[in-house]
Amino acid sequence: MSEERVSRLPLPAESELPPDIQELFAANRAKPGFVPNVFRAMSMRPAVLRGFIALYDALMAEAGGLSKAERELIAVAVSAQNHCHYCLVSHGAVLRIRTKDARLADTVAANYRAADLLPRQHAMLDYAVKVTRASAEIGDADHAALRAHGFSDEDIFDITQIAAFFNYSNRAASALGMRPNEEFYTMAR
Amino acid sequence: MSEERVSRLPLPAESELPPDIQELFAANRAKPGFVPNVFRAMSMRPAVLRGFIALYDALMAEAGGLSKAERELIAVAVSAQNHCHYCLVSHGAVLRIRTKDARLADTVAANYRAADLLPRQHAMLDYAVKVTRASAEIGDADHAALRAHGFSDEDIFDITQIAAFFNYSNRAASALGMRPNEEFYTMAR
Amino acid sequence: MSEERVSRLPLPAESELPPDIQELFAANRAKPGFVPNVFRAMSMRPAVLRGFIALYDALMAEAGGLSKAERELIAVAVSAQNHCHYCLVSHGAVLRIRTKDARLADTVAANYRAADLLPRQHAMLDYAVKVTRASAEIGDADHAALRAHGFSDEDIFDITQIAAFFNYSNRAASALGMRPNEEFYTMAR
Amino acid sequence: MSEERVSRLPLPAESELPPDIQELFAANRAKPGFVPNVFRAMSMRPAVLRGFIALYDALMAEAGGLSKAERELIAVAVSAQNHCHYCLVSHGAVLRIRTKDARLADTVAANYRAADLLPRQHAMLDYAVKVTRASAEIGDADHAALRAHGFSDEDIFDITQIAAFFNYSNRAASALGMRPNEEFYTMAR
Amino acid sequence: MSEERVSRLPLPAESELPPDIQELFAANRAKPGFVPNVFRAMSMRPAVLRGFIALYDALMAEAGGLSKAERELIAVAVSAQNHCHYCLVSHGAVLRIRTKDARLADTVAANYRAADLLPRQHAMLDYAVKVTRASAEIGDADHAALRAHGFSDEDIFDITQIAAFFNYSNRAASALGMRPNEEFYTMAR
Amino acid sequence: MSEERVSRLPLPAESELPPDIQELFAANRAKPGFVPNVFRAMSMRPAVLRGFIALYDALMAEAGGLSKAERELIAVAVSAQNHCHYCLVSHGAVLRIRTKDARLADTVAANYRAADLLPRQHAMLDYAVKVTRASAEIGDADHAALRAHGFSDEDIFDITQIAAFFNYSNRAASALGMRPNEEFYTMAR
Repeated sequence: MSEERVSRLPLPAESELPPDIQELFAANRAKPGFVPNVFRAMSMRPAVLRGFIALYDALMAEAGGLSKAERELIAVAVSAQNHCHYCLVSHGAVLRIRTKDARLADTVAANYRAADLLPRQHAMLDYAVKVTRASAEIGDADHAALRAHGFSDEDIFDITQIAAFFNYSNRAASALGMRPNEEFYTMAR
Repeated sequence: MSEERVSRLPLPAESELPPDIQELFAANRAKPGFVPNVFRAMSMRPAVLRGFIALYDALMAEAGGLSKAERELIAVAVSAQNHCHYCLVSHGAVLRIRTKDARLADTVAANYRAADLLPRQHAMLDYAVKVTRASAEIGDADHAALRAHGFSDEDIFDITQIAAFFNYSNRAASALGMRPNEEFYTMAR
Repeated sequence: MSEERVSRLPLPAESELPPDIQELFAANRAKPGFVPNVFRAMSMRPAVLRGFIALYDALMAEAGGLSKAERELIAVAVSAQNHCHYCLVSHGAVLRIRTKDARLADTVAANYRAADLLPRQHAMLDYAVKVTRASAEIGDADHAALRAHGFSDEDIFDITQIAAFFNYSNRAASALGMRPNEEFYTMAR
Repeated sequence: MSEERVSRLPLPAESELPPDIQELFAANRAKPGFVPNVFRAMSMRPAVLRGFIALYDALMAEAGGLSKAERELIAVAVSAQNHCHYCLVSHGAVLRIRTKDARLADTVAANYRAADLLPRQHAMLDYAVKVTRASAEIGDADHAALRAHGFSDEDIFDITQIAAFFNYSNRAASALGMRPNEEFYTMAR
Repeated sequence: MSEERVSRLPLPAESELPPDIQELFAANRAKPGFVPNVFRAMSMRPAVLRGFIALYDALMAEAGGLSKAERELIAVAVSAQNHCHYCLVSHGAVLRIRTKDARLADTVAANYRAADLLPRQHAMLDYAVKVTRASAEIGDADHAALRAHGFSDEDIFDITQIAAFFNYSNRAASALGMRPNEEFYTMAR
Repeated sequence: MSEERVSRLPLPAESELPPDIQELFAANRAKPGFVPNVFRAMSMRPAVLRGFIALYDALMAEAGGLSKAERELIAVAVSAQNHCHYCLVSHGAVLRIRTKDARLADTVAANYRAADLLPRQHAMLDYAVKVTRASAEIGDADHAALRAHGFSDEDIFDITQIAAFFNYSNRAASALGMRPNEEFYTMAR
């Protein structure tokens, strides 16, 4: 694997990275067993990587009304809109882990509208896709539609932020040409 | 101002925010003199706000080959593509400050292609707009075009990340209905 | 200013223009104090300029159910859809004059949906944007929606014509590379 | 014919129209033998109709480097992009008259790229379609491409204006629901 | 005619085609009097031509709840969306034959929404256009809308298949540069 | 499996299908071991199913310059553009079988531009995507680009037809709500 291209840009020598980034890599090699290529690709700018992880963890790992699987549903549905190779493969893997349902994960990657999800989850993804395609057109009625499915203000905040965030990470990954680690393809299949 | 709507969602009581967020607000009231509404709107989730600021500062305030004005050019050009009210008004203000050229800032907000910029800056914004509209189609040739204008690997990383980041913040701001502080409209005019 | 580029095409010598066009220029130098560059750029074809002004005046300066400010709202909202530099700057200025509200004008230029407008004005701009983006899909229901806000047949005619007209002037201005006079940027700020 | 709907809006009584509009209608009844419905639909606002005709005549009937058939090629190619029923039928008829080639006219209405035109005419229509779809992206290179086919500054002005103008008339006709006179369908077939 | 280009690719010698294809051509020369160029263009691959005809006949010539004219309405409305020269000219001809109404056929080719059709036919074409533009977004509600107009399950199957099929034939014809036979232009006018 | 929904429409009783369709189903139950749901969904109209299979087999199973894997590359790349659930899952499976490379298949389903393919295969897929998105804009230059990679006239015919065909089957499958058989998800992983 080590000789595989991680992104379109060269990687800094790992030994010259700041200690906290080296520790991050070591922790990832312990679990899940490899350093996700997004971390390696972003290590060119350690401060950016730190900010990325802080924001990502706040959005995907914090407590709240959305389950971790629901957060991954948003990640995959948005990544499908943006045709992001890295994110579809890596978050497809995480969605398989969270749902233990590879068929569901593959369906959301293809077209979330065809997936057997709860009505509230369909509404959540319809909104996430509108955030992706036409955020300037979102209005109070879109939030009311989410509230009608029982989503709280905090949930709406989280759905919006997660959908918006993957519009960042999708674009960064595709434009930098990040390639998913081999492990992601087979994880939880 | 206090009675003005900051976003579509209710705000947490400022007195109940974590101490570091309260300090952030106090520091902003000292300089620039007000708390940007994006901070207030995001204070509903302090961890998200902290991650947002960490990533934002890493992208916009760090040293590197891009000037601060060039980073703001990307912010405004991308925000124009996404028709983001909050970001066009607030980063339009910052671009006026950075360039001391309100005409230039207003031109980039309307159509960056009409602005009197350096060829390398036009190439940078062409790329940033492609990151915005068609990131899945970016290839090695797009990076080569940037290199032909003298941009380094680190510059390409930064342009990509900044362009991608505003596709996040634009969507979050528009979908949550964030409204720019009154001060932004007149700053540096 | 005289050495600034007015458009991508060369200008005819002013002294060789037909007398009525020379008078038009003189009248504009008296008030508002300068010749809008759209007139100078179009003086290459005096008959086209005359037709343009006749149609423009009929749409923007005639009496009717729409206020002059409302006509400018349409002009700016449509110009934002088309990213027209000349029209956003020049009609942004006129909208500031008509409304005495620079914040409102800047908001409409960014995203009219975020502006504090009357419901009838939002409906008017929703329709104007549909005229811009998908005129072939407009049907009786779109007119009924306007009537529900109290717009008369004549108002609907005017809204349609104004929205359609700026799809002409936006395209002519952008494609010919017209540049706004410096005065427009600061007028009524 | 008199009972046929002319547009979505009611028509003013012809006897109450200003004398010059009544004369215009009389002249059209003499030749070509009927009043084009666009005139009737726009007679609700005589000043708008006058401006429309002044601009239209300046663009379509003035002398210059473009033949009348070439002006109609632009009209039809742009109207096809905008799926404008009124303009495709009426200017399709005029194009048949100008070219005496119904196959050519029908081909341009379907897809101008498939028509047997001169290379300079293909370049002209490529540009007209870019004016239609992406005017904000037009730059000096687009004009240079026209010049390479021998088009003068005046020609470029005229092509731009005609293409832009039909983006107005297409939108006005479609949004107002104008219906072509029966005569247009069979004229010059 | 024989020297006219049929498509962008060379044609096989007719004498070397398999006997059934030669018979097909002979039958077409008997009636309607010429070999449609789509058959000649596809004779490069006889098996593909056979499959194309089998599928086409099953969709357009079989019995069912849709009239033959309604099937042609779908063909023309979809072909207009895809700007397919060959299909607009050839199926425009067939629609004239089926409806004996050249105005109607020309209107559908320009913009079916402007045509005087039954409400059920408008609903049918709205659906066919959604199949064309956004098939991944079609859901149960779209089928319910068709059922509300009295369409049966079999009708929905047929409308879907015909709309989808012309998205194939439009693309094949345009990409291969197929040119309509001269006869199609004037048939039933 | 028998109780799973196959598409949005009801299925005919298998015992009442024509004998050749019953034989087709029996043959599929023998190999690959199940009846692909597309066959079951299309059995409502046996003649359509027969035509579909005849065309499909002619395009995907005939000899020629394109390998079977290359034909599947087109199928999957086009299906990704159209977000077709059924086709991405089923042809993703076939592509894994043909290439014995699940990573490659998953990459093409996400974004073919990121896949490790031969330059000629990238050119083939660029063309197939243009057939999908903008067939009316394809010209001689697009065929010349394919020829520059060594593709013959017959290859260009086949690439075009296969790309066009999946624009049919994608739309039919999505609009009818076809669901992939469970077996496809895991085949050749």
